[in-house]
Amino acid sequence: SADSNLIRATLFPGDGIGPEIADSVKQVFRAAEVPIEWEEHYVGQEVDPRTQSFLTWESLESVRKNKVGLKGPMATPIGKGHRSLNLTLRKELNLYANVRPCYSLPGYKTRYDDVDLITIRENTEGEYSGLEHQVVRGVVESLKIITRQASLRVAEYAFHYAKAHGRDRVSAIHKANIMQKTDGLFLKCCREVAEKYPDIKYEEVVIDNCCMMLVKNPALFDVLVMPNLYGDIISDLCAGLIGGLGLTPSCNIGEGGIALAEAVHGSAPDIAGKNLANPTALLLSSVTMLRHLELHDKADRIQDAILNTISEGKYRTADLGGSSSTTDFTKAIINHL
Amino acid sequence: SADSNLIRATLFPGDGIGPEIADSVKQVFRAAEVPIEWEEHYVGQEVDPRTQSFLTWESLESVRKNKVGLKGPMATPIGKGHRSLNLTLRKELNLYANVRPCYSLPGYKTRYDDVDLITIRENTEGEYSGLEHQVVRGVVESLKIITRQASLRVAEYAFHYAKAHGRDRVSAIHKANIMQKTDGLFLKCCREVAEKYPDIKYEEVVIDNCCMMLVKNPALFDVLVMPNLYGDIISDLCAGLIGGLGLTPSCNIGEGGIALAEAVHGSAPDIAGKNLANPTALLLSSVTMLRHLELHDKADRIQDAILNTISEGKYRTADLGGSSSTTDFTKAIINHL
Ligand SMILES: CC(C)[C@H](C(=O)O)[C@@H](O)C(=O)O
Ligand SMILES: CC(C)[C@H](C(=O)O)[C@@H](O)C(=O)O
Repeated sequence: SADSNLIRATLFPGDGIGPEIADSVKQVFRAAEVPIEWEEHYVGQEVDPRTQSFLTWESLESVRKNKVGLKGPMATPIGKGHRSLNLTLRKELNLYANVRPCYSLPGYKTRYDDVDLITIRENTEGEYSGLEHQVVRGVVESLKIITRQASLRVAEYAFHYAKAHGRDRVSAIHKANIMQKTDGLFLKCCREVAEKYPDIKYEEVVIDNCCMMLVKNPALFDVLVMPNLYGDIISDLCAGLIGGLGLTPSCNIGEGGIALAEAVHGSAPDIAGKNLANPTALLLSSVTMLRHLELHDKADRIQDAILNTISEGKYRTADLGGSSSTTDFTKAIINHL
Repeated sequence: SADSNLIRATLFPGDGIGPEIADSVKQVFRAAEVPIEWEEHYVGQEVDPRTQSFLTWESLESVRKNKVGLKGPMATPIGKGHRSLNLTLRKELNLYANVRPCYSLPGYKTRYDDVDLITIRENTEGEYSGLEHQVVRGVVESLKIITRQASLRVAEYAFHYAKAHGRDRVSAIHKANIMQKTDGLFLKCCREVAEKYPDIKYEEVVIDNCCMMLVKNPALFDVLVMPNLYGDIISDLCAGLIGGLGLTPSCNIGEGGIALAEAVHGSAPDIAGKNLANPTALLLSSVTMLRHLELHDKADRIQDAILNTISEGKYRTADLGGSSSTTDFTKAIINHL
């Protein structure tokens, strides 16, 4: 469409249940009259028959140009030596921060009802350097890399996020008692940034203790910022508190203002194409994308409709103990708009 | 004493509340007529005025000779460059496996009531190598070392433990999708050992997913074995499920059959000397020491008395919401023997 009022956003539906849950987002956006025009590309485990590629240049360019996108689950291409497409996208698009808001869904009961956390994960280095080798037979090593540049960048993002979202505390998670140089540098950068935000409380918490506190009382935390692997672990732990990856949004922030929102759950090939998938994580991720675009009215309206539908409890997909189809659940959300 | 029927065991009461909770163990052992004679040494943050040392040769020799010991909390000596005494003991005594049984205490309510897990942590290498350096200004790296020898050793211990304790599943926790060489080697060793135990189910679970599953449903796991840092994180997470480090026993296994049981909580200097400390973690650790010595009758008797006292709820220390002193709580346990 040539409508110049429309914002172009990239959509990677992905594999398995990806296309169905992406459809759900498209329908909800249409019903809510979100001024977005999707630019859809396939990225996933199937080879593009035309280019013999899993990930075309056009797909990457689309995100770089639009600066905003939404991705469904992608399975890792089968065969030896393929890297996870998630990792490839992070690297190619320099997606340096992964932001996961994690809050209890009203009406969906878990052991916790007081969760409201934001985990912000450094997304490019640390234990994910890919640098590993055998020293001698039976002795292998991998390198964890921490840089001042990437640590400052993610710390800046965390404090900026806290301020913009009216949150008053940032906790840096680390194991600097053991990794004094690497995690020590990470903390040093967080402290430097913290000084520029005197209104936001800053604390440092050792990762093991943090995990214990999270399961005892998640209300002790607000915004958490941390190196890559700790972020991987803690964001999944937090998702577990509120019911799992099927309910938690995620958004990746890249250099130059890129935001690529994503569902972080798997592609669930066993239920793909059966109209059984729960689109909640992708829908809530699309809401984070709208917030990034500062379309807060639309974001609020859609988020409320999703939460009210789940809370009402009449239409829920099987993973949440209900028996609704993806399309009926989506219709219910649209009715709540 | 020259009573040759007594087993000699080393006791490091440690710092802060250490001496009080060690007293509690001594009293309970005496009342239960445990055939143990303590050989007590101070290891902790204070300098030995005689030797100017935090950790004397005699203390280490005592564990090496007795092969069995119990340690209270030790604070890290104040001043620059001191290493945690826990780490020093692990290294000096080659304590290669840290075993933490973690079970819900009857009558002590948390969000979980179905916890019964054993975490077995490789305790000597991995991210704890201490190898770190600055590559160039603003770029630091640390080395994670995984060896075939240490991985096989801890895997052997885990399967041996599972078999000896009638447990039917071992889960190896890893991040081999990212650290293919290091965690890959760890898994390879676990698989090799698993083949020798056809009656024990073996599975591999990625650490992030493991943490999510643990907070959703800890009953999904039985015995967990893993590299050092994951063990550090997961054993604290598991402690959180049942109420915290004040309630969880720990035992370190070293080469040559050494077992050094320990309370893993801190030395709580704020309440030290006030008869307020909860001795449960050290008491339950002393029970793991008795089991290691195959004194199962004594172990059962003492463990039952501790659990019954907590379950009865009449005598509880302040950290568990009660108002009992350490000594009254200890007396109550003795009355339950
Ligand atoms: C699939 C895997 C490579 C990835 C990661 O480890 O980052 C995933 O766990 C995530 O959190 O996005
Ligand atoms: C105190 C610290 C060095 C130690 C560790 O990281 O191993 C502690 O957390 C533990 O689990 O015993």
